[in-house]
Amino acid sequence: MPRMPIPFGDDVSACPIGNDRLAVLKTDMLVAETDVPPGMTLWQAARKAVVMNISDFAAKGVKPCAILVSLGLTKRIVEKDVAELARGLNAGAREYGAFVIGGDTGEASDLIISVSLFGTARRSDVMLRSGAKPGDLLAVTGLFGKTPAGLSILLCNAEASEKTRKVLVESVLLPHARMKEGLTLGRTKAVTAAIDSSDGLAWSLHEIASASNVGFLVDRLPMADEAKKFAKNNNIDPAELVLYGGEEYEIVLTVKPPLWNATEKAVANEGGRLTRIGRATTEKSVLLETKSMKRIIEPRGYEHFRM
Amino acid sequence: MPRMPIPFGDDVSACPIGNDRLAVLKTDMLVAETDVPPGMTLWQAARKAVVMNISDFAAKGVKPCAILVSLGLTKRIVEKDVAELARGLNAGAREYGAFVIGGDTGEASDLIISVSLFGTARRSDVMLRSGAKPGDLLAVTGLFGKTPAGLSILLCNAEASEKTRKVLVESVLLPHARMKEGLTLGRTKAVTAAIDSSDGLAWSLHEIASASNVGFLVDRLPMADEAKKFAKNNNIDPAELVLYGGEEYEIVLTVKPPLWNATEKAVANEGGRLTRIGRATTEKSVLLETKSMKRIIEPRGYEHFRM
Repeated sequence: MPRMPIPFGDDVSACPIGNDRLAVLKTDMLVAETDVPPGMTLWQAARKAVVMNISDFAAKGVKPCAILVSLGLTKRIVEKDVAELARGLNAGAREYGAFVIGGDTGEASDLIISVSLFGTARRSDVMLRSGAKPGDLLAVTGLFGKTPAGLSILLCNAEASEKTRKVLVESVLLPHARMKEGLTLGRTKAVTAAIDSSDGLAWSLHEIASASNVGFLVDRLPMADEAKKFAKNNNIDPAELVLYGGEEYEIVLTVKPPLWNATEKAVANEGGRLTRIGRATTEKSVLLETKSMKRIIEPRGYEHFRM
Repeated sequence: MPRMPIPFGDDVSACPIGNDRLAVLKTDMLVAETDVPPGMTLWQAARKAVVMNISDFAAKGVKPCAILVSLGLTKRIVEKDVAELARGLNAGAREYGAFVIGGDTGEASDLIISVSLFGTARRSDVMLRSGAKPGDLLAVTGLFGKTPAGLSILLCNAEASEKTRKVLVESVLLPHARMKEGLTLGRTKAVTAAIDSSDGLAWSLHEIASASNVGFLVDRLPMADEAKKFAKNNNIDPAELVLYGGEEYEIVLTVKPPLWNATEKAVANEGGRLTRIGRATTEKSVLLETKSMKRIIEPRGYEHFRM
C-alpha cells in the first residue's frame, strides 16, 4: 500500500479512514501444538488467542472494537468443546471491551485459533516502534520472568512451592494485556516508541533499537519476585528468565525524559505501574549493566515449545 | 455487539465507523489438507486463500482495501516456498485493488493460510442475506458445475477431453471473485438479498431462504457447457454438479422485479452477466422445476475433500 500509516513489520497494521483516523488491524494465530501447554484448557487457549492479539493493540495505544475468529478444528473436537472455545473467546474480548462479531470454522489437523482484531484510532495516538531517540528513558509496564518459569513447570515439572507455583502457572494460563496502560500512554504524547513483549524482553529491545536506529543500556532487570525465587531454587540464571522468556504481555517503551514524571503518574492514576529500566543510546548495541553484571543482550527471542 | 449492522452468520461482519459508514471485516482460513487439491501450486493456494475471502466481500457489494495474513507453516516449507506464498497472496490482492498490509507466520503441522479482509462501505450499499421477498427474481452471476468437475479430475482422474479438462481444472486452480458485479449490484438498490456460492448453489439458496423467510422455485439450472459435457461423458447427474458443487465463487441474489432490466443492464455494462434462474416464493420449500425435471433442492453443501 502506498504510504502506509503504520510501517510493515510493526505490531499492527492500519488503513486511513479519513479525518486523520486509522482503521487498525491485527491478525495472529494460536496453534495448539506450539502455543497450548499441557494443563491449559480450551477455554484458556481461546482466551489466550484473543489476549495475545489485544496485547499488540495495547502496545500501540489502540482500543480493540471487534474481533473475528477463524477456527481450525480437529476431528476430536466435539460440540461441547466448540462451546467452550466460544466462551473463552468471548471472555477475552469482553475483558477489554471488544466484541466477537464473526468468524468461521473449518477442519484442520491441529487446533488453530486465528484471531483478527479491528479498532479505530487517532493517527497521533498510535505508538510506533520507530521513534526512540538517544537519551529517551526505557521503561516497562510490569515485571518479567514468571511466564517462562510457569512454562518450565508445566512442560518439565520444574520445582516450586505451592504458592509460587500457582502464581507462575497462572501467568501462563491467564495472561493479561496492558490495555489501560497502553491507552493512557498513547494519550500522553510522551512515548517515542513502544512494542509488546510477547517475543521476550530482549527481542523487544532489539526490535525498537533496529526500528528507531538506537541502542539501549539496561541498568535494571525488571524481575518478578516469584521468578527470582524460582531461578534460585532451580539454579537458573535469572537474567535468562527475564530477558529471553517470552509470552509475557507487557509493554516495552521509550519516554521523552522531561515527560517521565507526568507519564509515570498518568499510568499510576489508571492503576498501572511504569518501571524505568534504562535508556536509549547513540551506540547501537543493547547492553545490560547493573551493579552485579555486565553483558550483551542478544537478539534472541522466545522459541515456541513443541511437545 | 449491541445492534450489529450486519447480522451474525452473514458472509461478512461490520462495525459502524460514523457517517453511516461501516468497517467491513471477514476472516477465513485455507487449510492445505482440505482446500488444496493435488496439482495446485503454493502460489495458487495463496491466491485462492485471498480470492475466497474477497468473494464474500463481492457478494455483499463491498470493496476490500487491506488484507492481513497469518501463515501456519510446516517444517517442510522453505524460504523459497514462503516467497511463492507471498507472491500468490499479493497477486490475489492486487487483482481486486487491495493490499496486503501485514501478517504473521508461525509453525503448524499443516499449511494454514488465514486471511483477514478489511474495507469500508456505505451502510445502504451492503447487500445482506435477509431481504428477499416472495416474487423477487432469483439470479446468479455465472454458470455452475465446472469446479466440482475439475476437482473430480484432480482428485479421481475423471475423464475429459484436453480442452474441457483445461477449463475445468483452471476453474479450481484459478478461481475468480465477482467483484465488479458485486459492487455494481450494491449500487443498484435493486438487490434484496445476496450471498456467495462457495458452499454450493443449493446451500446458498437455503441460506437466503432461511435468512429471508422465503422459499425458491428454480426453473432453470445455470449449467456451464463444459460441466454438461463432463457430466455426460462421466455419466454423472448434471443437476448434482450444479447444485451441490461448491468452491464456486458466484453471487446468488434476488432482485426486485420492476428493477430487473435495469439491474441486468448495469451488470452487463461492467462486462458481467446476470442469469435469471427462478423466483422467491411464499411457500418455504426450495424446488427445482424445469421442463425435464422436478425435484426438491436439498440443504446439502459442499463437503471439503480430504486426501
